[in-house]
Order: sequence, then C-alpha cells, then structure tokens
Amino acid sequence: MSKANELSASEAARRMAAGTLTSVELVKDCLARIEARDGDVQAWEYIDPAYAIEQAEQADAERASGKSVGPLHGIPVGIKDIIDTADMPTENGSPMFRGRRTNHDALCVAQLRAAGAVILGKTVTTELANIAPSKTRNPHNLGFSPGGSSAGSGAAVGDNQVPLALGTQTGGSVIRPASFNGIYGLKPTLGLIPRAGVLLQSHTLDTVGVYGRSVEDLGLIGDVLSAVDPDDRWSYRGSRGRLSDMVGETPPATPTFAFLETPAWDHAEDDAKAAINGVAERLGAQCRKETLAAPFDEIIDLHATVMAAEDLNYYGAFLEKTPELLSPQITERLEAAKSIRADRYIDALIKRDEINRSLEDLLARYDAVLCLSSAGPAPEGFKTTGSAIFNGLWTYLGVPCVSLPKLIVRGMPMGVQLVGMAGDEGRLLRTAKWLDEFLA
Amino acid sequence: MSKANELSASEAARRMAAGTLTSVELVKDCLARIEARDGDVQAWEYIDPAYAIEQAEQADAERASGKSVGPLHGIPVGIKDIIDTADMPTENGSPMFRGRRTNHDALCVAQLRAAGAVILGKTVTTELANIAPSKTRNPHNLGFSPGGSSAGSGAAVGDNQVPLALGTQTGGSVIRPASFNGIYGLKPTLGLIPRAGVLLQSHTLDTVGVYGRSVEDLGLIGDVLSAVDPDDRWSYRGSRGRLSDMVGETPPATPTFAFLETPAWDHAEDDAKAAINGVAERLGAQCRKETLAAPFDEIIDLHATVMAAEDLNYYGAFLEKTPELLSPQITERLEAAKSIRADRYIDALIKRDEINRSLEDLLARYDAVLCLSSAGPAPEGFKTTGSAIFNGLWTYLGVPCVSLPKLIVRGMPMGVQLVGMAGDEGRLLRTAKWLDEFLA
Repeated sequence: MSKANELSASEAARRMAAGTLTSVELVKDCLARIEARDGDVQAWEYIDPAYAIEQAEQADAERASGKSVGPLHGIPVGIKDIIDTADMPTENGSPMFRGRRTNHDALCVAQLRAAGAVILGKTVTTELANIAPSKTRNPHNLGFSPGGSSAGSGAAVGDNQVPLALGTQTGGSVIRPASFNGIYGLKPTLGLIPRAGVLLQSHTLDTVGVYGRSVEDLGLIGDVLSAVDPDDRWSYRGSRGRLSDMVGETPPATPTFAFLETPAWDHAEDDAKAAINGVAERLGAQCRKETLAAPFDEIIDLHATVMAAEDLNYYGAFLEKTPELLSPQITERLEAAKSIRADRYIDALIKRDEINRSLEDLLARYDAVLCLSSAGPAPEGFKTTGSAIFNGLWTYLGVPCVSLPKLIVRGMPMGVQLVGMAGDEGRLLRTAKWLDEFLA
Repeated sequence: MSKANELSASEAARRMAAGTLTSVELVKDCLARIEARDGDVQAWEYIDPAYAIEQAEQADAERASGKSVGPLHGIPVGIKDIIDTADMPTENGSPMFRGRRTNHDALCVAQLRAAGAVILGKTVTTELANIAPSKTRNPHNLGFSPGGSSAGSGAAVGDNQVPLALGTQTGGSVIRPASFNGIYGLKPTLGLIPRAGVLLQSHTLDTVGVYGRSVEDLGLIGDVLSAVDPDDRWSYRGSRGRLSDMVGETPPATPTFAFLETPAWDHAEDDAKAAINGVAERLGAQCRKETLAAPFDEIIDLHATVMAAEDLNYYGAFLEKTPELLSPQITERLEAAKSIRADRYIDALIKRDEINRSLEDLLARYDAVLCLSSAGPAPEGFKTTGSAIFNGLWTYLGVPCVSLPKLIVRGMPMGVQLVGMAGDEGRLLRTAKWLDEFLA
C-alpha cells in the first residue's frame, strides 16, 4: 500500500471525509519524506515540522467536532517563497529579503487557510522569481535542474513531499517546473487567482498557479483560489463555472485539439518534437496542425519586451540601491531593459489584444491548443533553469495553460501543454482530464 | 428677440417640442451666422448648407408625422474633424488625410443621429489633434487664439454658429477651448463616450467631450453619448445615473469645493490667479484650499510622459513614412518621445492609480475640485494654442471636468474648472449648475 504522501490531494480529501485517513497521518508521511529527501532535493526554504503537525492536529480536531469543513481541510500545501505568510518568513529568494517577515497572509494563502489547508512550509524560489538558478535539484535525477522559478514547489510535488503547491509564472515558472518534475500544473487566466501579497515583477504577466498530482487536484485547489481582487486592474472579472464540476464531466463530444508548433518550435529539441508529434499522431483526426496569423510570429519578442520593461520598473530600485545583492544574471537583464522604448512596450501590449482575438477565433473551433510544455526535458547541470520559450507566449496572452506529465524523453519526464480560452479553465481542465486518460 | 442660433440646445429642444420652433428655422439661423462669420472665424472644415437643411427638413417631417423622437431631435451639432462621419470627409487636420472619407460613422456620431441630431458639419481640428495651431480664430477677438485642438468646435459654439459640438481631449483640448471661447465644456470620465471611429493618439488619455451653451446642454448631450464600448479596454464600465436628471436637481446640501492650485499654479498668469481667487473668496466657507500628497507634485511630467509615449506609438509610423507631411511642432514632439524609457511610462501609469486614490479621498469630503480652466485667457496671436497645463493632469487621471464661462480677464473670457469623481459626472454637473447660478 502506498504511503499517504503519495496520494493525490483529491484522494486524500476523500479518505479524510470517509474517516480512513487523518491530516496528522498525511502530514507526518509528508514530513518523513521531506526528512529523507530534502538534503538532496532542497525544495524547502522554510519548514517547521512541529508547527505543521500542530495545524494538522487542529484540522483533525475540527473535523472530529462535527464542524463543517472546507474542500482542502487537513490537506498540506507548499507555498512558493515569494508569497507572503503571516506565520513564516518570506524571503523572495534574495539576500535583500533575508529574514523578512510580514504580519499578513497573501490573499491566496488566506483562501487556502479558509478552505482548511495546512500550510506546510515555504518552497524555494529562484532569486526574485527570475532566472538565476536556485539550490533545488530535480527529484528524478539530482544532476538535473528542477526548472524555475517555482523550483521548490515543482520538486516537492514531484518528489511526493506534498500533494499541492503554489507557484507563480511571469515567463514559464509554473508550467516549466511541472514539465521537468513530472507533475500536473495549471497556470490559470491572468488575474484568476488574486496576487495581493505576492512579490510583483510584472503586473500584466505575473500569474499565481498551482501544482497537484492529478487534473482533479488542479480543479480542487483552483476553485478555492479563484476570486476577484477589486484593487487589481488585471484581476479576472469574467464569469467562470466551478472547476471541480467541469473536471468531473464527460466532454459532450470527443475533444479536438489545435496542434500549434508556435514560433518557439525551432528551439525545441528533436526528441521533444518527436514526443509531441507522437501525441498528435495518436489523436489522429481529433488533432490538426494549425497556426496563427501575424503578429503571432513576433510573440516571443513581444513577451520579452513586456517582461523586461515591467521587471525594470519593479526591480529597478534594487539595481540602484543595492546592486551588490543582485545576481549577475538579473543585473544584466535589468541593465538591458533600460534600452526598451516606451512606444515599443505599448506596441507589445496592443498586439497582445490582436493575437488574443485570433486565438479566440481558433479556439471557437477546437477544445484546446496542444503544444510542448517545454523545449525539452530538464537540462543537466545547474547553469540555467532551462528554456521558458514555450511558456512566455501564453503568459503574455494571459490565457490558461495546463501541463500533463505524459511524456518521457531520454529517461526524464516532460509535459504535454494544453492552452485554453481566457476565463475558461473549466473546459480546459475537462479536456485535460480526457487527454490524461487517453494517454494513460 | 434673439435669433434661434443663440439659444441653448435645451431651450431649442423645448421650443421644438412645443411647436414654436422648427429644426429648419434653427439650422437656417445657424447657417446664416456661419455665412456671415466663417470668413473671419474659420471654424468649419466641411459644411454643406443644402445637406444640413435637408436633414432639418427630415427631422421636422418626422416630428410632424407623430413619430417618437429622440432628445436631440432637430438640434444641429458640430463634429470635430478627427471623428468619422459616413456622409462627410474626415481629414484629421493633416494633409496626410486630405479628402479622406470613410463609409461609417464613429459610434458617437451614430449615437447623435439616433437621438435625432442634425450633423451640421465638421469643425476644424489642429493637426492630428496635437499642438500645431489651426486656421481658426477666436470669435471674441480675431487676433487671439481659440485654443486647440478642438479649435473649430470651441469657436463655433462660442460664436453662436451651432449650439452643441463634439471635441476630444488628450491634453487640454476640450476644456481649454471652452475657457478661451467663453462656453460650457465637459470632458467626461475616460471612456464614458465611446471612441470607436475617433482618431487614436493615446488610449489612456483620449476622451471625447462636448460643448454647449449651458450646464443643462452638457447633461442633455452627455446622456445621449454615454455607452460602454466592449472592444475598448478603457471604456467606462461603472454605474452612472441620468445626467439630465441630476442637472435638474437641487443639491441636497449647499455644495462644497476643494480649491486646488495644482502643481501648474506657477504657470498661471497673475490676472488668472486673481480671478479664481475671487471665486474662492465669494464661496467663503464653502471653499477650502487643499492639496494632494506626492506623487501629485510630479503630475505634469507624468501626463507628459504618457501622452508623448502613446503619441509616438500611434503616430510613429507617420514619422517614418511621410515625415514631410508633419508639422515641425509634432515632429519635434515625436522625436523627443523616442527617449522615453518603457519603465518610466509604466511608472507613470502606476502613479496614476496612486494619485486617483488620494483624489477619491479628497472628493469624499467635497462635491468638486475648483481650479483654473487654463493658465490665462486666450493668447494673442497664433504661434501657439496656449498652455494646457491646467488640463493634462486631469486627463491623465481620467476624471470628469467641466468648464464654466464665468470669468473675464483683460476683456477676454476665461473658464472656472470643476473636477469630479470618476464616473460621477451627474454630481459634477449638479454642482456646476449650482455654481453657474451662484456666479451669475
């Protein structure tokens, strides 16, 4: 029998509801796994085992008292260390924030607590959720990168140390670690999950996302986290059904997929191309190769322009005041961003709307876009966190993306990415569930 | 007895409803005034008297038939020549667009037609609604500027050539001509009036505004023009009462005013300062001098940054393709905008939200901000269209502004400006009506 730490969050929740599993049992199994592995994987920036067990005991006591409980009652969750927590430090992966504590939870952490979750600890982030690699190792092979910037969250879920974790994506920081660590990841529509209390590097890109051990898990935690933040101009204000309901539905017709190589295709490894082509072939008539009209061909540069300009706006003060506390990688990026002209940035924002209109037209004819989650599996060594070139374009468009751990390339896991219509993660997850079973 | 062209739009509409005035009589009086004066004032870029009378005859016939009619039925309106009309050329004040015709109306023109208005003709705009002066002259003294960029609309209403006209404001292009030409002007909340079919130079600033001969006129045409444009990210989507109802209401308490000198104060002429100080003194305890916290002190530069960067984005292609068709003034502006860094532009957009929050706090305690409509009365000669320094700051904030023609400085008219809460032009107009009568 598998240990509780290997269960999906959904299955653990079902067992707790049935009385066959307690939160303390689950949390202890997670802690034991962490104890055994964290010296190698190094996924956690902060964890206090006694405090985690205390939260689990309280969850079990509340359930035993007959109180009504939330959908994540007693389920442990890992929190990327750029997301504020009232009871643990938040260091943003930077010596500038060493020992930093806030007296408030980020809104998304408060939502998790309100749903009954156990906040297990803080997971390692790359420096300021940017490109310089972190100390975390890939649990599938310790000589390989776990990706970034949500390195610890991806590795911890991938190593069965915790069933759920939060990440954030500005380039490819949710989907890429999902791909490299062999787990399920959802980067939702821009602004679906509130960003208040999360380190801000790019207001038009930064998106809080989630990791889990099944598509069902993504819907479970996605429902808990969706909310409008009236103070955030980019908060998603459209309508949205209950994700858990949609995940459980059988699609009304066999789903269809628009296979997009995307302008990143030339950067993909041959093995990765072969792997995704294999998926397309298995789907047969349900999958057609498509493309999008110009300016889609410029999309990689457009994302880079927006990200660099906004990064410089938010991090420029660090560069001025404490340049010695920044890595060479981020320093070089910020310096380069000084050459970006305002009108080019505006142009990139305007073209986003234009490309989104053609993507909407495409998705009127298909259930989802099918593409690579990453240019290849996790890179060997720790010079980089790997390429985010298959992610930045979708982050730029603000549309929801799911990564399914369905490929093995040269012995390492790699994801299949599905992309949906803004605000329609319900349909996206339903389609993802179908594909997950189809490729099982 | 006054001629019909001297009536306010509201009074003309009442007389038509009562059967004591026809649209043909009104339009003919307007055309006679134009015939007599346009050689001097030069407010019209395009006008076809026969076609105007034809529209008026049709309006009269419709009314006679017993058909239900709209609130502007039979009322002539002048349209700034950067606003598309299906039946007249739209030349954007530039040789690049000479003879340009579109086969559609701008949404705001379609709204006017649906309300029964007679589209009298197209009024002169400065080149591309920017700073280079136009041929139009100030009707109060032909040696003086009418302001810009809505020069023709301001002068035509100021000279009793038409009771209502449309303008647009990116810097000070609605309120400044209102001030210089001695008329009532409303620059509403950003996005209250749809911009589809209007020359775009700055999506975060460009605002369609209106001129009339009374506060009541501003409410009458404002109601007709308010609508959500779902394709415009900056369209105002908040709630709003009926402006005409609010204008007719007695304020529940005697209105109070926050007198803001604003960071533009040092640029105001001494006579202008004395004039607005006189208004504040007459208001006594109802008016208090206030200020706003930093970064309000930077607001003039912040507006300039946003406007220049967006101008370059939209007009940069003209500079590349046909520089010989641009004036030296706009060329110099666009060239200078190339030095604006993207992160500075982003910073300016973020600070806008910050300043708006402190303005909201202020307007929770007052009915309106009181300030100058312009740095002085119309400048003599035609080297510039005058300073817009008292306008750009409010355009940047996207808040509604009214100009009331209540001051005379060195024999020329000048406006008192009231500024309200975003989306609350109803209260602003009610307050403006009160002040208009108080200062009568």
